[in-house]
Amino acid sequence: MANNKNFSVIGTRPPRVDAAEKVTGRAKYGSDAQLPGMAYGKVLRSPHAHARIVSIDTHAAESLPGVYAVVTSADLLSAEERAARVAAEDWGFLAACDQTLAHDKVLFAGQPIAAVAARTPTLAEQALALIAVEYEVLPAVVDVLDALRDDAPLLHPGLRTRSLAAPSEQPSNVAVYAQQLKGDPAQGFAEADVIVEREFRSLMVHQGYIEPHVSTAEWNADGKLTIYADTQGLFAVRDQVVWLLRLPMSDVRVTPLEVGGAFGGKNNSYVDVVAALLARKAGRPVKVTMGRADTFLGTGPSSGTVIRLKLGATREGRIMAAQAALYYEVGAYPGSLAGSGAHVMFGPYVFPNAQVDCYDVVVNKPPTASYRAPGGTPATFAMEALVDELAEKLGLDPLDFRLLNSVRNGSEDLDGDLYHHIGGVEVLEAAKAHPHYTAPLAGPNRGRGVAHSYWGNWGARSSCTITVNPDGTVGLVTGSVDITGTRTSVAMQAAEVLGLPLERVKSSVGDTDSIGYSDVSAGSRTTLATGTAAIRAAQDVIAKMSARAATIWEVPAESVTYQNGVFAVAADAEKRFTFAELAAQLPNTGNTVIGVANVDVGEWGASFAAHIVDVEVDPETGKTTLLRYTAVQDVGKAIHPSQVEGQIQGGTVQGIGWALYEGYVYNEAGQMLNANLLDYKLPTALDLPMIDPVLVEVPFPGHPFGVRGVGESPILPPPGAIANAIARATGARMTQLPMTPAHILKQMGKI
Amino acid sequence: MANNKNFSVIGTRPPRVDAAEKVTGRAKYGSDAQLPGMAYGKVLRSPHAHARIVSIDTHAAESLPGVYAVVTSADLLSAEERAARVAAEDWGFLAACDQTLAHDKVLFAGQPIAAVAARTPTLAEQALALIAVEYEVLPAVVDVLDALRDDAPLLHPGLRTRSLAAPSEQPSNVAVYAQQLKGDPAQGFAEADVIVEREFRSLMVHQGYIEPHVSTAEWNADGKLTIYADTQGLFAVRDQVVWLLRLPMSDVRVTPLEVGGAFGGKNNSYVDVVAALLARKAGRPVKVTMGRADTFLGTGPSSGTVIRLKLGATREGRIMAAQAALYYEVGAYPGSLAGSGAHVMFGPYVFPNAQVDCYDVVVNKPPTASYRAPGGTPATFAMEALVDELAEKLGLDPLDFRLLNSVRNGSEDLDGDLYHHIGGVEVLEAAKAHPHYTAPLAGPNRGRGVAHSYWGNWGARSSCTITVNPDGTVGLVTGSVDITGTRTSVAMQAAEVLGLPLERVKSSVGDTDSIGYSDVSAGSRTTLATGTAAIRAAQDVIAKMSARAATIWEVPAESVTYQNGVFAVAADAEKRFTFAELAAQLPNTGNTVIGVANVDVGEWGASFAAHIVDVEVDPETGKTTLLRYTAVQDVGKAIHPSQVEGQIQGGTVQGIGWALYEGYVYNEAGQMLNANLLDYKLPTALDLPMIDPVLVEVPFPGHPFGVRGVGESPILPPPGAIANAIARATGARMTQLPMTPAHILKQMGKI
Repeated sequence: MANNKNFSVIGTRPPRVDAAEKVTGRAKYGSDAQLPGMAYGKVLRSPHAHARIVSIDTHAAESLPGVYAVVTSADLLSAEERAARVAAEDWGFLAACDQTLAHDKVLFAGQPIAAVAARTPTLAEQALALIAVEYEVLPAVVDVLDALRDDAPLLHPGLRTRSLAAPSEQPSNVAVYAQQLKGDPAQGFAEADVIVEREFRSLMVHQGYIEPHVSTAEWNADGKLTIYADTQGLFAVRDQVVWLLRLPMSDVRVTPLEVGGAFGGKNNSYVDVVAALLARKAGRPVKVTMGRADTFLGTGPSSGTVIRLKLGATREGRIMAAQAALYYEVGAYPGSLAGSGAHVMFGPYVFPNAQVDCYDVVVNKPPTASYRAPGGTPATFAMEALVDELAEKLGLDPLDFRLLNSVRNGSEDLDGDLYHHIGGVEVLEAAKAHPHYTAPLAGPNRGRGVAHSYWGNWGARSSCTITVNPDGTVGLVTGSVDITGTRTSVAMQAAEVLGLPLERVKSSVGDTDSIGYSDVSAGSRTTLATGTAAIRAAQDVIAKMSARAATIWEVPAESVTYQNGVFAVAADAEKRFTFAELAAQLPNTGNTVIGVANVDVGEWGASFAAHIVDVEVDPETGKTTLLRYTAVQDVGKAIHPSQVEGQIQGGTVQGIGWALYEGYVYNEAGQMLNANLLDYKLPTALDLPMIDPVLVEVPFPGHPFGVRGVGESPILPPPGAIANAIARATGARMTQLPMTPAHILKQMGKI
Repeated sequence: MANNKNFSVIGTRPPRVDAAEKVTGRAKYGSDAQLPGMAYGKVLRSPHAHARIVSIDTHAAESLPGVYAVVTSADLLSAEERAARVAAEDWGFLAACDQTLAHDKVLFAGQPIAAVAARTPTLAEQALALIAVEYEVLPAVVDVLDALRDDAPLLHPGLRTRSLAAPSEQPSNVAVYAQQLKGDPAQGFAEADVIVEREFRSLMVHQGYIEPHVSTAEWNADGKLTIYADTQGLFAVRDQVVWLLRLPMSDVRVTPLEVGGAFGGKNNSYVDVVAALLARKAGRPVKVTMGRADTFLGTGPSSGTVIRLKLGATREGRIMAAQAALYYEVGAYPGSLAGSGAHVMFGPYVFPNAQVDCYDVVVNKPPTASYRAPGGTPATFAMEALVDELAEKLGLDPLDFRLLNSVRNGSEDLDGDLYHHIGGVEVLEAAKAHPHYTAPLAGPNRGRGVAHSYWGNWGARSSCTITVNPDGTVGLVTGSVDITGTRTSVAMQAAEVLGLPLERVKSSVGDTDSIGYSDVSAGSRTTLATGTAAIRAAQDVIAKMSARAATIWEVPAESVTYQNGVFAVAADAEKRFTFAELAAQLPNTGNTVIGVANVDVGEWGASFAAHIVDVEVDPETGKTTLLRYTAVQDVGKAIHPSQVEGQIQGGTVQGIGWALYEGYVYNEAGQMLNANLLDYKLPTALDLPMIDPVLVEVPFPGHPFGVRGVGESPILPPPGAIANAIARATGARMTQLPMTPAHILKQMGKI
């Protein structure tokens, strides 16, 4: 299955270009931004999940010595501007403003109300305590099904459900409703010999990045703004700031620093606009650093969900019909994620008949955000648990049952689109052939589970420039923040095209003034799409250098070739330059060359993953111990196999956390009870076995080297695989995430 | 004479893009670089002008608490490396090393011996005092003519004079000798009716920048180096550091900060390598800031000179012959400047017969460096003073005499090359027509002088990238440090091509990783050459956007035009996009575009200037007061007239300083006696009349808008013009710079 082409750089495992800086503690993160005269900003957040803001009195805070500025929503939008936006029904803009600094209402505990910049962080905290906010507390709704009840408090009295059919007439907490229908589900179920049906639940979970958001803003005297950002997307921050502050794009420069974890949670901008507002009012640079509680309360987690799923299959194991309803909490403001969940859920298998109803529901909790394979993990959990139960009922091997129903090239998805160049079957076959799958698993209370998953991946827009130095080294700049080693994996692709060793390619991330637009580093897109930009920029360098060689040699440009690191003219053995030799000629033959590429990658390959896990469940305590874990994945072509393995290991661990430990716990008033890393448990090395990654390489032909996105897939299978292993170990079918000891004991009928 | 084409941006006077930052004190200069854990570096300098270094003991300095590193030449070059370079006769490299940190010999007072990095600048100074250096003092030579004597101490016993003929057999202090011969000078003088001859002298002068050199170096853990530099050329610093530290170019990133004055003195790198060595040894960032004395003693001034000149003309005023010998001090290490002086000196007039002998002579003083119109000012002084005397002897109006002999398009220079597209005559005629020239000048002890000058200018290599934002603003990045407002004047040229108002072009300077090679901002080249790069990059943007429009409209690319800010297809009135409208389409039609250009501008236009000055000389004290000053100059096309006027005013003031006040004063042992700004007098506003700039615009056709370099020319005429005015006021012909009261009284025969 491997891509057998001989590469010099692709497929090797050099040290990451950021490795030395990070392991020595010298890498510069958002917190390292230090500017002369800089002040420190802090944000006041609502203690209430749903309340009207009657008044905000900032006088005492403003009077505290050492306080430079206090801002509220009025600093973001004047009364006149607000009125104009309301008149224009610009709800998206107003919602974004309210999430930055609430105007007259709060919709979740943790929503920003005001912010302070002061000489020290402690002074800023003290000033926050001096801001007097009068609230009229309103009833809150925190559960997705409760929010659908007729008597539920309405978060947005003006909200009409968006749906592919006509929007609802009545206000509702359902932000988006969509239905997908394929074939005749009733007929399908009628033809099925075995039907299984369950309701699955999951809690909101956090991306679990260790570094909280931080932003430092500095205004020039001429009204130009620089943001030192902690983000997955420098242009996303630029665009958010430009949008909310109504500035020309060229007035805002965003310089990204290193990112201490993101996983989708730093696609969004939470404190950049606040930092900018404070800095403008204070007349000095301001750094706003979120604390851990700020991070839990004030940033976007992944949705809590309720998923009802029913599957029917023939005695021979052919799935005939599926019916699903997905209820996704989108948090306090309208959003859409359930449809993505459904897409992931139904991706791996052929369903001749299906009905899927998707509900995105607002609740008085933080507005949700992306988290690695957004929307997919609870959906894959539901599907894989029920598929496994179906296989069990049919007496079929779980991998054989999946293989039997797996999508293949040419299969039709729910939308009627055809799969192409996918590796789902190869992944399942590799899992089945893996020694882990047939290894003995001795001992009581132990079980082996498998799960399979589909993730669509992404392409989108990236830019790259490559400048050539006279000594044959090159400088490569992209607009893609490096959260997964992409400075390395992108540079490796350029090095391969340029015929250079990697160490001759200096890879860095530019700022919004100096590099072309690039979408966020997310959606498993960077190595694919920014890699494509790097390949094109490298090809542009080769073309320009070939033209220069042609000028020097006085031959037609098209007669110059570049192969194996040598520019040459086939007919003339005298006419040869290595890359470095020609680079040395550039200064005196018209100056160096810059290769550029701005791409929008419109084709990308889906990624399939199959995981195998062995567990042991303590029958007394319900505690689940993972004994062995194997993660098989189609990665297209691994540019840097160690980094791909690291992605698979990291994503799997996050899936394990979701499976066993993590979840936002709320009281009925909408206060989060575990907004800290003691009570919100992330998996640690002590909780985990070695995660054994297995790379399957089914090249994606839309990329020159066959790359597929790899980062998101591995988070999808763990909850299903672990639930299925627990079922084998205990006989109990788990339907709720996280699968805590209490849930397991309950499902085992022990409590 | 004006370029009459209608422009939208070119020729207007918008605020400089750096103006607000600078007048509010927020602009970031080298001293503003602050890095976590940063140490402060100081340099120990030789007190002797010529000495053998017997030993350096750094032990006590290293033992001082708070000292992080002490470096000497051994840290720059190991004994083995030095031996290898000596064996390879790599004298240029070894000389550069010795000027960074002297090895076994010092050749000027102020030469660096060692450097210290410590917790505070004060500690670093204390540590310097603890370094024990044992010297064997050698006899020094500080005067250019003394250095030519047979018994003069030899600075470089291995130095053989470089000359167009064979190098000398004997060691000598003459680094370079060159002779230019045209026609038959003896015959020319024989045909002359009037002959004048004098010897002119000038002292070394400093560029007089107010901000001393500063450099901050930081090593990454992986051996990559970043320099925050105070320089006219980020790539010049990069190349110097790469050369002396033997690093791959891609391992060194140079980030330029704002520059507080340069004038040629920051083409050279003085403390960047020292900062890098200290930072590497200290294991932390190090900032090295020179003091004022460091700056005088340890950086390169302009040459002190002796120039002998003889001119002969016919009774009708036709110059028939010239003979000149130029002796230029190049300081302690070989260099070449006298030839450039001769080129400037003989540039304005037609000389049918001429002999010029040029001597570049090493002396025990700092190695010289560029200073605005390098080598030209003393040479123009000599020529203009003697031309004026000749005109007086012939009874001709000084401007008429110059017009009669002025070079014109098609005239031959000393090398036999033909002048083209020059504005020398236009400048002289504009001076003659200026009201100043015929204004009454009443009162005793007053005189009016004129002088004319030629400067060749420069083109060379520049790079530019332009990225397009969806709101129609653009980001423009060059590799040219902005020392004269070039961020503005370059962006204006791009704005003109792009059809955008200047405020939609965000102009900035990149670092060596992100922008293509660009030569130093010097030689009056930046607005011309980097402007050309900006024009080409803008044209590349337009071409790429036109192609995108063609794709959107489904028409051939060549059918799309861009005029008056509108992309259109002539045949179809529906097919129209403004720049901003098409920019908004880019994100969804394949991503934005980047325009790039790397140019090597091989053609540039010379610049002529004619100055008129009125003086009054106090007959008792010899003090010269400037009463009125007019500076006429051919500027080709003034992109930003206020900036061009500012260049003319600033350059003229520097020429006035050279004429009246400035000069390095040495004792016989080679110690500089006035290495501070009290004893080395720069002109201040109190010393000056308004400098009235007059722009003559003879477009240079090699640039799309007709630009010529403007920055250097105005320093050339002041000494000659003032000397000629003093002669008219007092009858005394001045032959020595600066023309101090003592010199004037002496020349008047009063002392």
